[in-house]
Amino acid sequence: MSEIRRDPIIGRWVIMDTDHPFKPEEYEYEPHSYKGGVCPFCYGNEGMTPPEIEVIRESSTAPNTPGWQVRVVANKFPALQIEGDLDRKGLGIYDMSNGIGAHEVLVETPYHEKDISDLLNSEVENFLSMYCRRALDLVKDKRFKYIMVFKNFGAAAGASLEHPHTQMIALPMIPKSVSEEIRGAHDYFQFRERCIFCDIIRQEKEEKERIILENDSFLAFCPYASRFPFEIWIIPKKHNEFFCHMSPKEIPNLAAILRETIAKLKVIFPNLSYNFIIHSGPVNTDVEVEGYHWHIEFMPKLTRVAGFEWGSGFYLVSTPPELAAKYLKEAKSTISK
Amino acid sequence: MSEIRRDPIIGRWVIMDTDHPFKPEEYEYEPHSYKGGVCPFCYGNEGMTPPEIEVIRESSTAPNTPGWQVRVVANKFPALQIEGDLDRKGLGIYDMSNGIGAHEVLVETPYHEKDISDLLNSEVENFLSMYCRRALDLVKDKRFKYIMVFKNFGAAAGASLEHPHTQMIALPMIPKSVSEEIRGAHDYFQFRERCIFCDIIRQEKEEKERIILENDSFLAFCPYASRFPFEIWIIPKKHNEFFCHMSPKEIPNLAAILRETIAKLKVIFPNLSYNFIIHSGPVNTDVEVEGYHWHIEFMPKLTRVAGFEWGSGFYLVSTPPELAAKYLKEAKSTISK
Repeated sequence: MSEIRRDPIIGRWVIMDTDHPFKPEEYEYEPHSYKGGVCPFCYGNEGMTPPEIEVIRESSTAPNTPGWQVRVVANKFPALQIEGDLDRKGLGIYDMSNGIGAHEVLVETPYHEKDISDLLNSEVENFLSMYCRRALDLVKDKRFKYIMVFKNFGAAAGASLEHPHTQMIALPMIPKSVSEEIRGAHDYFQFRERCIFCDIIRQEKEEKERIILENDSFLAFCPYASRFPFEIWIIPKKHNEFFCHMSPKEIPNLAAILRETIAKLKVIFPNLSYNFIIHSGPVNTDVEVEGYHWHIEFMPKLTRVAGFEWGSGFYLVSTPPELAAKYLKEAKSTISK
Repeated sequence: MSEIRRDPIIGRWVIMDTDHPFKPEEYEYEPHSYKGGVCPFCYGNEGMTPPEIEVIRESSTAPNTPGWQVRVVANKFPALQIEGDLDRKGLGIYDMSNGIGAHEVLVETPYHEKDISDLLNSEVENFLSMYCRRALDLVKDKRFKYIMVFKNFGAAAGASLEHPHTQMIALPMIPKSVSEEIRGAHDYFQFRERCIFCDIIRQEKEEKERIILENDSFLAFCPYASRFPFEIWIIPKKHNEFFCHMSPKEIPNLAAILRETIAKLKVIFPNLSYNFIIHSGPVNTDVEVEGYHWHIEFMPKLTRVAGFEWGSGFYLVSTPPELAAKYLKEAKSTISK
């Protein structure tokens, strides 16, 4: 018989096929391939993007020319724009505001065809540090309530450009999913006086069967009520609401666990597309975030979300996290240090 | 500048590109095509499915043989099973129960390659009546709290079989998205003593610009805070919590508006894949549903949901509903009556 599991934070239900679970080879995913063409994020094409907002580059090189390692530019087709007033208003029963916000693109590496697992640890550290620098800068604008950092890798995961990049969007309101998580964590904190995420870490470390990787600062595991097969969370072991408050020691450890996680996934699923999203506390707001704990939610793109999921917020998962973690633990990656 | 809009029922935010909206021809969707092969839902292959639960068939024909118009069978690979106890329990911080429920498949027509818009009104009425009959039967099992009715059409929309069919899942708990909708509608009802959906209908009929079709019983419109481009809601004008309590007069009107809506969509987007989901009140529960109003949410599969949407519950929509409704209103379908 299948199992119905409940996410302890927001109360989402998932149906887990524990009876006839899918093996990795049963997933018919769309493999990622590089189509080539002119890329605005490659060396020499810096003029095709808006000018650099921040950059890590060789000191002898000029802005908006080659010689950079990580480059942040405004999104050329931004979902939101920085100038103007929110001007929130009602229209009968409806509510709207102007599309105020920031939308930046962080180019992770000059190499068009290098996924995170193909980079050196130091290169991954570079762009993770840049996530924090940009977030700390965007937070200064008091209109912004949330900094969303996410990566779409591969067309199947919704990426419109092949070159490895991360998007950062500063939003003038707290997204619904984030509010739900914060409320769930806060309710738990009120009840138990403990962080629910710290309790999850404790239970996962005791049970062990869903853990993939662990280092001094981070844990990578398949969550008990995964929404997607081979879903992975990467979470700091030290309680902290905001990712941009990571300590200098944590960044290399995050780089290492992120690289190794992706490397292992790609041993099992070559040319995989994926999304990951940093879940962090809201900013410039009075919302109570005690008991919230930042983390990365990593979603391999193995299936298509169908009507059932959209209609219900219920998810059908063909490989239970215990089994997914077992495959991932056993996958031997050969990444360089 | 883009607009940020808020869904009045559950408070979801969407970013609407009102500045540089996409025209229909700018969507690069995956066109639906029939691959053929042996189909368990076609005439002559009745033995390939579990036996009929209910059926509309010529009186001279035997069960599980050709001669049917609409056929309901148990799902051969059910997400949930009917026998057993829920046995809900905690596992440390987590919650689970056995996968109890019902999972049925309703084959809408014997014609493998006929989408709803290719059927006669009377044929669509037949399978819509069967939705109601099956729901009224499933409701008798007091363990079930929600009857989910949804259709995935085309591989891009998550359909694993080509032959037109609808799935019905009876769930032992109320799905999260449904709970949120019911709570939103209930809060509004407490505050205004009116149904929020009836108020939406009133405002849409006044403003007119998002309405696609209207008949005596139903309205088809693009919702103000659509999550997806060309999203459509079909809603009964008479207040009613449960779709299976539709009056006999409403069924032909629903058949007509559903057919015409899909026909118009396919004029603009040939070989479109789509999902639709019936949103209805929960059953066998004390949850207060006053102010809830059943409806169909129809989602054309034009885009892929990416990291931003998963992470935030915020959606980026490239064609505002006012423009989508205009295209749809102008699309000339040539369906037969």
